[in-house]
Amino acid sequence: MDKYYMKLAIRKAEESRGKCSPNPFVGAIIVKDGKTIGEGSTMPYGKDHAEIVALREAGSQAKGATMYVSLEPCCHIGKTPPCTEAIIKSGISRVVVGILDPNPLVAGKGIKALKEAGIEVVCGFFEETINVQLEYYLCYMLKKRPFVIWKTALSLDGKYAASDGSSRWITNPASRRQVHKLRAEVEVVLAGINSVSKDNAMLNVRGLRNVKQPLRVVLDPLLDISEDAMLVKSAQDYPAMIFYHQGEESKLQTLRDAGLKTQKISGHKDELDLYEVMQVLWEMKLYSVLLETGNRLSEAFWKAKLVDKCMIFYGNRILGGDKGSLKAYDRKNIDRAIQLHNVRIRKLQDNVLVCGYPLW
Amino acid sequence: MDKYYMKLAIRKAEESRGKCSPNPFVGAIIVKDGKTIGEGSTMPYGKDHAEIVALREAGSQAKGATMYVSLEPCCHIGKTPPCTEAIIKSGISRVVVGILDPNPLVAGKGIKALKEAGIEVVCGFFEETINVQLEYYLCYMLKKRPFVIWKTALSLDGKYAASDGSSRWITNPASRRQVHKLRAEVEVVLAGINSVSKDNAMLNVRGLRNVKQPLRVVLDPLLDISEDAMLVKSAQDYPAMIFYHQGEESKLQTLRDAGLKTQKISGHKDELDLYEVMQVLWEMKLYSVLLETGNRLSEAFWKAKLVDKCMIFYGNRILGGDKGSLKAYDRKNIDRAIQLHNVRIRKLQDNVLVCGYPLW
Repeated sequence: MDKYYMKLAIRKAEESRGKCSPNPFVGAIIVKDGKTIGEGSTMPYGKDHAEIVALREAGSQAKGATMYVSLEPCCHIGKTPPCTEAIIKSGISRVVVGILDPNPLVAGKGIKALKEAGIEVVCGFFEETINVQLEYYLCYMLKKRPFVIWKTALSLDGKYAASDGSSRWITNPASRRQVHKLRAEVEVVLAGINSVSKDNAMLNVRGLRNVKQPLRVVLDPLLDISEDAMLVKSAQDYPAMIFYHQGEESKLQTLRDAGLKTQKISGHKDELDLYEVMQVLWEMKLYSVLLETGNRLSEAFWKAKLVDKCMIFYGNRILGGDKGSLKAYDRKNIDRAIQLHNVRIRKLQDNVLVCGYPLW
Repeated sequence: MDKYYMKLAIRKAEESRGKCSPNPFVGAIIVKDGKTIGEGSTMPYGKDHAEIVALREAGSQAKGATMYVSLEPCCHIGKTPPCTEAIIKSGISRVVVGILDPNPLVAGKGIKALKEAGIEVVCGFFEETINVQLEYYLCYMLKKRPFVIWKTALSLDGKYAASDGSSRWITNPASRRQVHKLRAEVEVVLAGINSVSKDNAMLNVRGLRNVKQPLRVVLDPLLDISEDAMLVKSAQDYPAMIFYHQGEESKLQTLRDAGLKTQKISGHKDELDLYEVMQVLWEMKLYSVLLETGNRLSEAFWKAKLVDKCMIFYGNRILGGDKGSLKAYDRKNIDRAIQLHNVRIRKLQDNVLVCGYPLW
């Protein structure tokens, strides 16, 4: 039955996806005599973790019960007291853990604390599933940079635009809705200045209710952004940030006055140091970045190997022409091609979404 | 119950797919008192049609029974006597027909003959399904040219090869097996001389048992084919044909001696008149052509609007570089993009197959 309840905990965790950052979204289920007596998922940052929510529901019944939790309970004082303490105090006699928390403040210490209190602990259930579920958080902890998702929209023949530059719309409304869902799930949506200047992109979440808005990041090396850009105008309502390496102080001030954050980054001509960009975002505790970059900036991210996951939306179009995706990211020979692992596909009406993880 | 039995007839027809050309593959089910008493699908060319096979199984029980047949029964003497006569003689009292046969020798006359004999006839069941099932045959009859399937293998970013020209293998064994199945199902596999010279392509069916081999057609405008090409060497075992517009008589004779057919076609420089190619194949009663053309010849077929169906196999590769598919088939603007209808997708392990019908 352990597997059954762990699956429930994993499913429960999904309720908090995209809602509790920078905490990982976790699910907890408390079971006694074959009956679920408490369940919870991580609350928004600063509020209760999943374990606490579940314990509150279980109340005094928790004594002698088993807790299933997808990620190792924390044992440190953060915004909230340690979960391990609450578990011990509740009288829970057995804890089943999905995976260890790689956060150096936890990393096995949570389990150790529980064991030392005489609680039976089992760890390692559905690790592959949870590793995927918490991929943003795990990347953030283990690689010390945010998890980077490259999203692109291509015609069936692999073009990002027609030869005259037109690309509105390659994909259908179902695909675009999916993109908005994705924006709501990540901490950062990142685009280049060209997307913002040319398409006047807003990069916010639209058409969905009760969602968190991501931080909108624009890589704008020479601070070319127009003060009239929709992205600038909307900065009071939706957070936005400009990364640049060269720019007039007065313009920077104007942008700040409009409500944007600005961040100087090392750069050369019209390029920024992408690793430094990632470093800054990591320090800001932002653990996932959705790239909505045009072709040129996409190529730069691929060259820097800063792609953890691909999401390619194929629109129902044959376009021809020379606007082939990732042209400058030339692998030269078939043996040097990049492959994806864990390829998944999804049909979105007449569009196709292909997801996978580059094998670097 | 009519729908139920018609579905059975449609499914039965599949048993003859690719095996009875140039006859359409048809299924017939005979039902009496709620019991199936006979079933059949079209036998190889020259042998019995589906109706006859089913009638033979039913024997004298056919009297008063209902026949379900996916395509209108024939009423003309071809290689075999008319099916309508056999049906009338059997005493069948009711015939349910999927779709009318557009063959001008039939085209409603089959149904008329049955009705005149006092048989109750109902027509028009699952027409969409049967129109797809018999798409090769229907195109052949209605457009007076073979049905053309464009098959291509692309990387996820839409390249047909790496920039050094290497393309072996973009797709996985599951995709390639699918291509061999497709070759076994069509009458003609067509490629350009470049594929034959460069890859020494055989274009036959391999790795499948009990299959019919397609006619292998090479478009070789200037008769450049090497006498040592595998395709030439194998012409005794697998039929092959060369279309050219300019060539030495001695070379033509050598090819004919090797077992190949040769066919002169109008052409200009290194291009052939593709409509004339189709005309010749139509006259040969070949009703489906699988294009296994390289990029350049593919572009020519697209420009000529000679693509009835697309089958794009996406291999699990990111290639970059400038070998973008259909570059010269430039639609210029997004509004001029070609869309597909009836898009279907299939996962072949880590590859994706997208099928659809260009909306011209």
